[in-house]
Amino acid sequence: MGDAQVKFTLGERDIPTHWVNLMADLPGDGPPPLRAGGDGVLQPAGPDDLSPIFPMSLILQEVSAEPLVEIPDAVREAYKLWRPTPLFRARRLERELDTPAHIYYKYEGGSPPGSHKANTAVAQAYENAQAGIKKLTTETGAGQWGSALAFACQMFGLECEVWMVGSSYDQKPYRRSMMQTWGATVHRSPSDLTAAGRAQSEHTTGSLGIAISEAVEVAAQNPEANYSLGSVLNHVLLHQTVIGQEAIAQLEMAGEYPDTVIACVGGGSNFGGLTFPFLRRVIRGQAQTRFIAAEPAACPTLTRGVYAYDFGDTVGMTPLMPMYTLGHGFVPPPVHAGGLRYHGDAPLVCGLVKQGLVEPRAYRQNETFEAAVRFARAEGVIPAPEPAHAIRAVIQEAEAAREAGESRVILFGLCGHGHFDLSAYDAYLAGRLEDPEFSEDDLAAALASLPEAPALA
Amino acid sequence: MGDAQVKFTLGERDIPTHWVNLMADLPGDGPPPLRAGGDGVLQPAGPDDLSPIFPMSLILQEVSAEPLVEIPDAVREAYKLWRPTPLFRARRLERELDTPAHIYYKYEGGSPPGSHKANTAVAQAYENAQAGIKKLTTETGAGQWGSALAFACQMFGLECEVWMVGSSYDQKPYRRSMMQTWGATVHRSPSDLTAAGRAQSEHTTGSLGIAISEAVEVAAQNPEANYSLGSVLNHVLLHQTVIGQEAIAQLEMAGEYPDTVIACVGGGSNFGGLTFPFLRRVIRGQAQTRFIAAEPAACPTLTRGVYAYDFGDTVGMTPLMPMYTLGHGFVPPPVHAGGLRYHGDAPLVCGLVKQGLVEPRAYRQNETFEAAVRFARAEGVIPAPEPAHAIRAVIQEAEAAREAGESRVILFGLCGHGHFDLSAYDAYLAGRLEDPEFSEDDLAAALASLPEAPALA
Repeated sequence: MGDAQVKFTLGERDIPTHWVNLMADLPGDGPPPLRAGGDGVLQPAGPDDLSPIFPMSLILQEVSAEPLVEIPDAVREAYKLWRPTPLFRARRLERELDTPAHIYYKYEGGSPPGSHKANTAVAQAYENAQAGIKKLTTETGAGQWGSALAFACQMFGLECEVWMVGSSYDQKPYRRSMMQTWGATVHRSPSDLTAAGRAQSEHTTGSLGIAISEAVEVAAQNPEANYSLGSVLNHVLLHQTVIGQEAIAQLEMAGEYPDTVIACVGGGSNFGGLTFPFLRRVIRGQAQTRFIAAEPAACPTLTRGVYAYDFGDTVGMTPLMPMYTLGHGFVPPPVHAGGLRYHGDAPLVCGLVKQGLVEPRAYRQNETFEAAVRFARAEGVIPAPEPAHAIRAVIQEAEAAREAGESRVILFGLCGHGHFDLSAYDAYLAGRLEDPEFSEDDLAAALASLPEAPALA
Repeated sequence: MGDAQVKFTLGERDIPTHWVNLMADLPGDGPPPLRAGGDGVLQPAGPDDLSPIFPMSLILQEVSAEPLVEIPDAVREAYKLWRPTPLFRARRLERELDTPAHIYYKYEGGSPPGSHKANTAVAQAYENAQAGIKKLTTETGAGQWGSALAFACQMFGLECEVWMVGSSYDQKPYRRSMMQTWGATVHRSPSDLTAAGRAQSEHTTGSLGIAISEAVEVAAQNPEANYSLGSVLNHVLLHQTVIGQEAIAQLEMAGEYPDTVIACVGGGSNFGGLTFPFLRRVIRGQAQTRFIAAEPAACPTLTRGVYAYDFGDTVGMTPLMPMYTLGHGFVPPPVHAGGLRYHGDAPLVCGLVKQGLVEPRAYRQNETFEAAVRFARAEGVIPAPEPAHAIRAVIQEAEAAREAGESRVILFGLCGHGHFDLSAYDAYLAGRLEDPEFSEDDLAAALASLPEAPALA
């Protein structure tokens, strides 16, 4: 016991020099995003559709076919504030589960904003600063992404303006104070600063869809401002691949390679960041690994959605994207895993599910909190509600290994801490946590919001 | 810029094997703690005065004359969950301050409970478990210490019962939920579970003094329970010396040695943990280093208190201890640095101040938050209000280095993050933060609570 290693630590020099672009490994071009032209006819969306709100360097990353994309020096420098992140072997959890499985977790909660979101936030802030942009706008729900972008803008001398969903703004002031401490301006959405917000004046508690519309509107109208998105898009997933690359190096230190890699999925950036470097090896025939994507049963995009073209936002302003979706009009019930409450998913991740390379699983809210408390008591770290879904899957897999009598190696992503989610833990421990279901009627109602578009194979 | 190192990382094997016991280096025995005997006459307190509530192994550490005390394997194993902690060079802060000084900080906020308190909590939980104890009791104000002990008890299979000051219990539920997530039972103090609590039934918001009395009462009456303290005592400071030892190794990696070491002081455990390994070298004539102890102007124990025998607690249950004190009856104003609101200070730290080896400085609440926001914007990490006092002193020293044109090396302790203090940041940013003074009249009133006891030289 006294000599058993639990923490695998890399030095600053081991921060990856490149991001892993999985698009280079996928057979052929996937279905393109579509945009209605001036004549109303749908056609593939191009760089010009994105350039009013994104810098060209990020648009080029979005469509890049290069297998590796170099990380700029200034971004690696910013990464040094919290990277490399530690990889832990969960020996206490293994004992608690009485499993022969070896369980490893890659912990991203040590970044200043407390999650993996910082990995893309600094990359996006840097590229926008290089392009001469003075301000970034974005939306945030409970505040994870908004605080990551506020932090990153402060690092690169950009203004940051965040539209925060009204109900969170009122009820969760800590994340707002965090953004303000890093110098960001935070608006309660709907605000009277935008046409989109003013049109919603009676809609006092707001929604993510409205907040997106407000942030995009301000960015599109101001040539010195751009918009920034925290998940879903290819370049965002690209930036997160530092996670999986470090995990490979750390597992080598441990003399292991994973049989199963597990991560939660909301928009897909945490999942892609951890799995893509491992998936590349599988696609290239260099390894055999299972991948499990864990999502909430209350928002079961990958497990019960349809593979179809849909809008990325609620209002319908974005291009149509090929993905598993519940319909862009679907408003998920207010589960505490706010980062997983998304009707769709990253097209890259959806394509991998479609191909059968990734197995999706859905879990109910109460069973994920049960798993989270079990993890916190064994390992110390209190997980955010999002990665608690991954932990639920890990426990399932560890129990399966025990039943099979096999010493399987399981790796999962612990993408953030739960310091701002303790009221949810309180509700769970007091037996007052809601446990929403998702019925066939809910599904039918949600899918009714799918737009007219070409079918996907 | 791209190659400048900012983070100095040690591996698991570099966790210290021993704690540094500075008592072995101090000339002669210091003044002993005193306790009234059966005849009411004061006499030196001995192990028997402590054994009803502490295990003998910790009592022996409390009075040890050995220069090094071995860290048990099981404690080093628990340390691996968050140790070694990183040392950072604050290059962005240096640029922001335009100083030739090299500023380093040792960051303890990555422990599961979020502060250095975990270092002694696991050591105390382990020794109590070894002694066959089943339950630890303690008090907590805002919750830092209570959550560290809850975490540690979970690691070693002990029950944990925490009396939390009523006003914090009502207003700061997050830390309470954290303790409960780790399996602790948390009582609002005053409670009706103890004679001390019942006697206070009208005192609805509680105080740290009452909470201590409740926790000690329960531990003293139950042979299977002990009490645990998070600061002040020699053995608690001893356990924290892993901080300074790691910092020495990490500064060696950086090729530097500090001219000045700075930490905040409440009870003294964070200050002692960082400085004692450096102070040993000064006392032994092996180094020349300045030490600055930063405290709140609203509770100026070291800068304006008297060096005298006083009780450690508000109620007067503990032995009399030789220390700088404002009088045990003093109730500091409710500054947000709850961990620094203590009328006295560790006798070991007070002795070093008395000898002139440590220079104390006091700072007002608003100037410490100004320093904290400046630090957060430069370095990313949002500090707890306690180490913000150290940061205020660091900025002062960095400015002095600029004026002197000298490239001084400054090390400070960033003992915890501010994730549960964001409402205080909010108040500061909105210009609504109180900035309490401490007048001569306040001092006179406080000192009136000093007990009758022999004078100290």
